Amino acid sequence: MKANDPSIHSWIQIAPDCDFQLQNLPFGIFQTVDRDPRVGVAIGDYIVDVYALTQHRLFDMLDIDDPTVFHRPYLNDFMALGRPIWRQVRERISELLRNDNPEIRDNRELMYECLVKQKDAQMLMPVKVPNYTDFYSSIDHATNVGSMFRDPANALLPNWKHLPVGYHGRASSIIPSGAPIRRPKGQTKPADADAPVFGPTKQLDFELEVAFITGQATVLGTSLTTLEAEEYIFGLVLFNDWSARDIQAWEYVPLGPFLAKNFASSISPWVVTLDALEPFRVLGPKQDPKVLPYLEYSGDGNFDIQLDVTLQAPGLEQEISICRSNYKYLYWNMNQQLAHHTVNGCNIEVGDMYASGTISGPTPDSYGSMLELTWRGTKPLQLPDGTERKFLHDGDIITMRGYAEKNGIRVGFGEVRTEIMRAL
Amino acid sequence: MKANDPSIHSWIQIAPDCDFQLQNLPFGIFQTVDRDPRVGVAIGDYIVDVYALTQHRLFDMLDIDDPTVFHRPYLNDFMALGRPIWRQVRERISELLRNDNPEIRDNRELMYECLVKQKDAQMLMPVKVPNYTDFYSSIDHATNVGSMFRDPANALLPNWKHLPVGYHGRASSIIPSGAPIRRPKGQTKPADADAPVFGPTKQLDFELEVAFITGQATVLGTSLTTLEAEEYIFGLVLFNDWSARDIQAWEYVPLGPFLAKNFASSISPWVVTLDALEPFRVLGPKQDPKVLPYLEYSGDGNFDIQLDVTLQAPGLEQEISICRSNYKYLYWNMNQQLAHHTVNGCNIEVGDMYASGTISGPTPDSYGSMLELTWRGTKPLQLPDGTERKFLHDGDIITMRGYAEKNGIRVGFGEVRTEIMRAL
Repeated sequence: MKANDPSIHSWIQIAPDCDFQLQNLPFGIFQTVDRDPRVGVAIGDYIVDVYALTQHRLFDMLDIDDPTVFHRPYLNDFMALGRPIWRQVRERISELLRNDNPEIRDNRELMYECLVKQKDAQMLMPVKVPNYTDFYSSIDHATNVGSMFRDPANALLPNWKHLPVGYHGRASSIIPSGAPIRRPKGQTKPADADAPVFGPTKQLDFELEVAFITGQATVLGTSLTTLEAEEYIFGLVLFNDWSARDIQAWEYVPLGPFLAKNFASSISPWVVTLDALEPFRVLGPKQDPKVLPYLEYSGDGNFDIQLDVTLQAPGLEQEISICRSNYKYLYWNMNQQLAHHTVNGCNIEVGDMYASGTISGPTPDSYGSMLELTWRGTKPLQLPDGTERKFLHDGDIITMRGYAEKNGIRVGFGEVRTEIMRAL
Repeated sequence: MKANDPSIHSWIQIAPDCDFQLQNLPFGIFQTVDRDPRVGVAIGDYIVDVYALTQHRLFDMLDIDDPTVFHRPYLNDFMALGRPIWRQVRERISELLRNDNPEIRDNRELMYECLVKQKDAQMLMPVKVPNYTDFYSSIDHATNVGSMFRDPANALLPNWKHLPVGYHGRASSIIPSGAPIRRPKGQTKPADADAPVFGPTKQLDFELEVAFITGQATVLGTSLTTLEAEEYIFGLVLFNDWSARDIQAWEYVPLGPFLAKNFASSISPWVVTLDALEPFRVLGPKQDPKVLPYLEYSGDGNFDIQLDVTLQAPGLEQEISICRSNYKYLYWNMNQQLAHHTVNGCNIEVGDMYASGTISGPTPDSYGSMLELTWRGTKPLQLPDGTERKFLHDGDIITMRGYAEKNGIRVGFGEVRTEIMRAL
């Protein structure tokens, strides 16, 4: 793919530490005061208005019958066109932005029509999510949770290394970066109480995750192999799976998390395509015991994506780093997750979101939740102002960032940033 | 509501045991060889083509700006208009079908345009389902399961009487009556094996449930009280929550059922409105211990709906009754379920489906699943041909039916009928 060539450069000036280099070109949905919601592609500090490109006949050579797929409030209709079109569009935009291409570079009016400053735009949900599944694929996270709540000697449940454990989450409450969340209320059962009590959660937590989005559908009753799975994946976003640990502890038996999770999940608004992440493939961990044949995957199934979480507490001027993890730590890769999800014939839809589960690394500074970072509140985080955090407070802002970097090329996700508002 | 008056009669002849009396008027989506998918209302053996009513100006007096909401492949856009419109439409259709109304009765051409024989139509999914939640609200079912898998002396988990336990299910694989299901494959762990094996489920089961459908949306961060909840509910359908018990037993810890459920759920195609069920309200069971204030509901929160399940085995000419239960057995009612679901701010959407969980009654012949009817396979069902059933076989057909009856008026759901195809 020419668009991934490290040697190409844009006529747009891009800072070296910017997430949106020419080799990235992530897709999202934006609006401005004079542009209604539509498809955009991030480049440096700008957004390419993809619909405007079609209106100025810059996509005429592509196999797109209906250019209004770029003039929609979600990416779904564009994604439904399939991988060959995703590639054509990304390659063409790459070409238009390259420093040797004069089509927009030398046309001030076109530039004005087709480029919007990111600071003038509002990013919206990139996709309409028909189904959302959350996996549990980090071995360090599952081990930490099992150690805390069950038995450190047998932290992983018997099924964990045989299948990518997952469960269904709530699609309706997935929101984009910038939208605040409200501290949820619910039932909890204090250890010393006879009956549950009702009130705001006292153990609000983030979970550092990455989600992939499917851009193609399957028919109910059919399955995808691990080799086919990837052809259905459009791209990835950062995913903060907000959790209320005290609500979860009381409600989750026997059918799993429910109100402890479904009050909100936050995502980064730019979908980084699987194509753009191609150079950052790495081998996953060795899987022992051997997995069943339908889950086998050889080759580089993981991606080296650095993931960071910061906390900005009210009254503190600077955000502080509280977690540095990596997507490559996942035990189960995307292909395995999707093959497992469909092995019983479950169908997938365009826009579905499949989150990884909390991505913790092997070291305590790489744990992807407050639950693990403070070891269930027993080791509070110390803040620069002398206060501490066991779980999250009202007014706290959690920001997750992610990027891959290799051969001097950075492909980043931007951020998902969320402020916590007090309970109503 | 005049439409519920037991004394009204239609100019259409309707057999007394028919589910679709004039007092019912359930909504669905149908198509025929010459009518594309659109909204219909069942009456006797016929379907009223609601879009045709609007085209013939029979809805002109209603507050409907855009009659094409009835010319859509789902009820969602009609439902989004809200309860006053749902009522206007049902009342107007009732009026048009009453024996004292000549508008259609005395106009052969109109009759031909507006009525379709059910046998000439195909029923489709009535709604596009953005979110699907499954509750676990039958105390007999939860007690049976707890007795079988945990401890008969402490069958209910500590949270069960304090909150309506629920979990998220898969929206994409909900299918209408008539669509067959494919026996799913997956991982199971035989008791005597060291490692899991892969293959078709050996413990395929049905679950007798009823689901309500929301016709209005809420904003993320807001909650519904038990009194408000009902205003958001459009109607109910029969719901068969297919389950693979052996897959479930291996996968479900710690995050709940996943592939054991998401291969398919089947629903009856006619949505019986909450308005039509109004005469069949009954008091729910006494809740002890007292529930938290946000879950309190006084008044007749349950509905007396007789529920029947039959099995037709290959080679047997007659279907046999295997379960007779009732919706009124639910410990938690719809209003409590929806108030609980939203108490943390989780938003609901138009078309969401909320299933009850398996509805078992207190007696063994009222258990709503094979798991309970055969007590985990230890008491197989004896079939007339001398064979037996622990769980379901390929070629078996499960049919669920439901109806309410009072003062000589029957309001029925029709059926959800599903054949099991062998695994591929």
